[in-house]
Amino acid sequence: MLKVGIMGASGYAGEELIRILLNHPKVKIASLAAKIEKMAVSKLYPWLKGMLELECSDKSAEEICKKSDCIFLALPHKVSMQFAPLFLKAGKKVIDLSADFRIRDVGVYEKWYEVKHECPEYINKAVYGLPEFYREKIKKSDLIANPGCYPTGAILGCAPLLKKKLADTKSIICDSKSGVSGAGRVPAQGLMFTELQNSFRPYKINAHRHMPEINQELSCVSGEKLEVNFIPHLVPMERGILSTIYLKLNKIINTKEALKVYKDFYKGEYFVRILEEGVCPDTKNVARTNFCDIGIRIFPDRSLAIVMTAIDNLGKGASHQAVQNMNIMFGFDEKEGL
Amino acid sequence: MLKVGIMGASGYAGEELIRILLNHPKVKIASLAAKIEKMAVSKLYPWLKGMLELECSDKSAEEICKKSDCIFLALPHKVSMQFAPLFLKAGKKVIDLSADFRIRDVGVYEKWYEVKHECPEYINKAVYGLPEFYREKIKKSDLIANPGCYPTGAILGCAPLLKKKLADTKSIICDSKSGVSGAGRVPAQGLMFTELQNSFRPYKINAHRHMPEINQELSCVSGEKLEVNFIPHLVPMERGILSTIYLKLNKIINTKEALKVYKDFYKGEYFVRILEEGVCPDTKNVARTNFCDIGIRIFPDRSLAIVMTAIDNLGKGASHQAVQNMNIMFGFDEKEGL
Amino acid sequence: MLKVGIMGASGYAGEELIRILLNHPKVKIASLAAKIEKMAVSKLYPWLKGMLELECSDKSAEEICKKSDCIFLALPHKVSMQFAPLFLKAGKKVIDLSADFRIRDVGVYEKWYEVKHECPEYINKAVYGLPEFYREKIKKSDLIANPGCYPTGAILGCAPLLKKKLADTKSIICDSKSGVSGAGRVPAQGLMFTELQNSFRPYKINAHRHMPEINQELSCVSGEKLEVNFIPHLVPMERGILSTIYLKLNKIINTKEALKVYKDFYKGEYFVRILEEGVCPDTKNVARTNFCDIGIRIFPDRSLAIVMTAIDNLGKGASHQAVQNMNIMFGFDEKEGL
Amino acid sequence: MLKVGIMGASGYAGEELIRILLNHPKVKIASLAAKIEKMAVSKLYPWLKGMLELECSDKSAEEICKKSDCIFLALPHKVSMQFAPLFLKAGKKVIDLSADFRIRDVGVYEKWYEVKHECPEYINKAVYGLPEFYREKIKKSDLIANPGCYPTGAILGCAPLLKKKLADTKSIICDSKSGVSGAGRVPAQGLMFTELQNSFRPYKINAHRHMPEINQELSCVSGEKLEVNFIPHLVPMERGILSTIYLKLNKIINTKEALKVYKDFYKGEYFVRILEEGVCPDTKNVARTNFCDIGIRIFPDRSLAIVMTAIDNLGKGASHQAVQNMNIMFGFDEKEGL
Repeated sequence: MLKVGIMGASGYAGEELIRILLNHPKVKIASLAAKIEKMAVSKLYPWLKGMLELECSDKSAEEICKKSDCIFLALPHKVSMQFAPLFLKAGKKVIDLSADFRIRDVGVYEKWYEVKHECPEYINKAVYGLPEFYREKIKKSDLIANPGCYPTGAILGCAPLLKKKLADTKSIICDSKSGVSGAGRVPAQGLMFTELQNSFRPYKINAHRHMPEINQELSCVSGEKLEVNFIPHLVPMERGILSTIYLKLNKIINTKEALKVYKDFYKGEYFVRILEEGVCPDTKNVARTNFCDIGIRIFPDRSLAIVMTAIDNLGKGASHQAVQNMNIMFGFDEKEGL
Repeated sequence: MLKVGIMGASGYAGEELIRILLNHPKVKIASLAAKIEKMAVSKLYPWLKGMLELECSDKSAEEICKKSDCIFLALPHKVSMQFAPLFLKAGKKVIDLSADFRIRDVGVYEKWYEVKHECPEYINKAVYGLPEFYREKIKKSDLIANPGCYPTGAILGCAPLLKKKLADTKSIICDSKSGVSGAGRVPAQGLMFTELQNSFRPYKINAHRHMPEINQELSCVSGEKLEVNFIPHLVPMERGILSTIYLKLNKIINTKEALKVYKDFYKGEYFVRILEEGVCPDTKNVARTNFCDIGIRIFPDRSLAIVMTAIDNLGKGASHQAVQNMNIMFGFDEKEGL
Repeated sequence: MLKVGIMGASGYAGEELIRILLNHPKVKIASLAAKIEKMAVSKLYPWLKGMLELECSDKSAEEICKKSDCIFLALPHKVSMQFAPLFLKAGKKVIDLSADFRIRDVGVYEKWYEVKHECPEYINKAVYGLPEFYREKIKKSDLIANPGCYPTGAILGCAPLLKKKLADTKSIICDSKSGVSGAGRVPAQGLMFTELQNSFRPYKINAHRHMPEINQELSCVSGEKLEVNFIPHLVPMERGILSTIYLKLNKIINTKEALKVYKDFYKGEYFVRILEEGVCPDTKNVARTNFCDIGIRIFPDRSLAIVMTAIDNLGKGASHQAVQNMNIMFGFDEKEGL
Repeated sequence: MLKVGIMGASGYAGEELIRILLNHPKVKIASLAAKIEKMAVSKLYPWLKGMLELECSDKSAEEICKKSDCIFLALPHKVSMQFAPLFLKAGKKVIDLSADFRIRDVGVYEKWYEVKHECPEYINKAVYGLPEFYREKIKKSDLIANPGCYPTGAILGCAPLLKKKLADTKSIICDSKSGVSGAGRVPAQGLMFTELQNSFRPYKINAHRHMPEINQELSCVSGEKLEVNFIPHLVPMERGILSTIYLKLNKIINTKEALKVYKDFYKGEYFVRILEEGVCPDTKNVARTNFCDIGIRIFPDRSLAIVMTAIDNLGKGASHQAVQNMNIMFGFDEKEGL
């Protein structure tokens, strides 16, 4: 049994990691840390009563290190970078769910996250944990920069068209809509039930920290430096991200042809599902899973491609993808526990 | 035009007061205070843009006093008592939505609210603002202790049976369910959207501060000191309280007879609606109103009366009832603006 | 008092009409019809108990005609056209909330609504009921084609830029998100609570019947025949439509300049609120109102304008706008009752 | 691998059965039937895409029988009884999620369900599938009458006190609150999203069909014929039932003593969790599980016991319990797949 530790067990990504790792046949949750007073994890999460006997506390990285072969950092950005090097030096494998090792250009990271990177030398060692793109590198890596939630859906949705040079790189519009858990567990008035139940709104228009991450990966795929337009919105539901992406076609193809491009691109990828013509994705169909559902509509006479992707922001957008990465790193079946 | 001031404009009761007073034909909102940095009230509440030009700030009681004939205190308990005397001494009328002047026995207040009362001499001057019970006193009063949300529904529901000595006073069970706005606007993890969307739970069983208030008023009505069992629950919805109240009958009557008792008791009361036999109240039917809907079912062979009441916790349970009280105090039509 | 009749009182638009007309100081609800068995309207809508004594039934147009000066048709398309002529011939004023008289090209109507128009001669007599565009015509008209919900937000959002020839007419993208009441009250599995609570999805991509209506009005404004891309989505909330509209600029301006264009265009329009720079609209700020909130962001280096509009689909998107039209037709203050 | 068939695959209980059986290591879903046109189950439930290739149609019982060792009947009452005998005669094991075999007194069944029982001779062969009560019988049975959702929570909550003769049997009040999925998937106006989002209401007071089922089992436990008061309410959430149960104590005990009674009664029962003193159950803690969480508060001076139970109506209240029964019947680990 692989012994795993989780730092940041008190957040939503941490909780979701516990939920799935608990049923993972090859894994034992060995250590849980969070910035809380010491308590049984079944007190922190009463749904765990009878299922997991383990305490959770603000324990030292050293303590976690000793007990774990693989450590998940479900920490805020700026915090992960303080712990990752210690685990790596001790020969452990690290899967970081924060943004700290995602951005390869440290200048871009420091600009968007408004902090000095404390261990830039580790950025190059990190592999961006999107298995559909970097599986071979993930197998050999010790440090995974697990993708952000919005970027996962946006990148998987745009990549096939960009790879084939079928879409204009200057005018991509990604209109994304996220459930509330994406905003994390720290209490804020804007996240309260009463404030949100009948509220739908855009925010951080072309100003969200996930934008440089999308730009980085889509620039790689397309072979040219591009900048998307990224417009996130908050949906009054618990989980799920649906992105409606608008791309201008360079070459006129029809929906059938586009579907073939996508099916070829994601051939053999269990967790990416290309929906049949006329079918739209729905967040509820991917809830609590590692799937990314992709629907495509082409309007040839308008040179317009509309790509719609649905993921669970805590699933393929965070913890499930992190476990997929763990499975790859340790040679397990990629679907194990998912 | 009556000039009104609102202290505590940044909470849900304060916001609701603004909403209804804005359309009240006899009233002008003259002054708004809240513990926030100074800003236009239309910035605090963007829905007000174009409708109300007024700033809201942490202004002094003196300033509000000068501008207002009637002051609503939509403040937390313990805070209202610091301001009410000043307004009263200046000859203003005060409608307090906190609990500070509701409990006539200062010892009971101090026990349940865990604070020393700062101006107990004002408690006797206050009238409990349930118009259906105290209309004549309200007319002549300068200080209204506006009822709590749970107590409003519970008291209105039990009173007719108790007044007529038809129900046992020792075994009343009030199983109440409240929407989330009842918990106020101060951010807390337990009130976040993601925590609540699929959550239903009881809390503070026979330990909620509204219980002594219910006991006080129902003791008055019944003529004997009684203690109810009060079990509140949190419902994943914005507004509304539904109370299902179980009473043991002292005398066997049927549903029709009980309905007559209720209709007689609330004769002429526009805001209390007795539902026909077989009809149950629903929180959505009283949302954003000052109505209290009451449904009654008697099971004669079980000596059981089930009384169900629905109110909007911010409506009849707070701000609308406060405006009803204002209407009475100033001789307006009781329905004006409601 | 103006006597009004409502056909289609059992749908959401009909219910909302009752809600606002009940408090309209110049109006008396005289007659209610719906395809239901005869019952008191307070049985159909228990929230009306004590507020409105009137029966609602499947009564004849003749009967409604006799009792009403102004008739609201809150009917499905294809049904309104069967009744409007009768009322008009009797000299009554008609405000039709269906699509039957909105599309000036009867061929377009018949194609999209898959029905033969029964009284095409009335289409030219109808005025499209968007007061911000057609106020003078509305004053003199007897037949108002009240705008659709999506079109209201989309047209108000795009018009100023198109009027000034500032945006490309070939590449407009309108990504709209609607609350569930927009789908009406006829039971369907896809509209059930359990199906929708955690669901967010696009539907009818460039295939929604509101698209030709948007095209018609924006073609008028811009002076050239245009076709937008219209992508609606369903949001798990009761009310509200937020549209995020992407336009390519013909001329480089900045956000401030764009805001000035919008403020000039909507000068004097109480119900259209242009939000300050950096502020995004939110459906909750326009809930239960006739307001349309518009936010604008320009990205000059990308030649991109992002316009966001929020309305209540039953407010400015249906019944409140219908009452605004009535106010204009009968010479009342345009804000009366709203 | 055990081959299972599901009749009624298009309802919520059927869908949930598929969800859990899909991951059950000892089971293969062999056949799916529903009253729908023939389609891939992944079209019926798009979340299944890529996970299960099987068609679902209105197939004959014979066809299902041939392919399955164990058949789940996730059918409406009145329908299950038409199929169960056929499967049983063919030597298959049947787990019926309807009410058809739950009520041992056929007269009571026929009165409450308003239908003549078609095969009363099978009622005695059926075992009421509450494993905590009837495990040994379930092991040997071919026909399980899987408990109703409300009864599961109510019975598990009351049994320990009644068994020990600690509570009065004449005055039990079960105030239950259920999520909307409990009402099934057949479209109805009252179950629409827009109708329910802000609605909380009681219904079928002492008139719900689950009441005789609760009475039957609690009469067994207590050794005397009893009738509870059962008051269900509808909560605007997807899943979960919380019951707040009020019992009059025959003998004064305190909360600690009561907790011991419950812990002893449910000793070794993995799926019943007795919460510590002061902790209340919450539906979200049992969502998508087979757990029943029980909280207990005793008020000795009022002779009142308040027992609160939380289950998932589709979990322990339906499909998960059905799988628990299957595990027992076929000698699997009781927790397998749950």
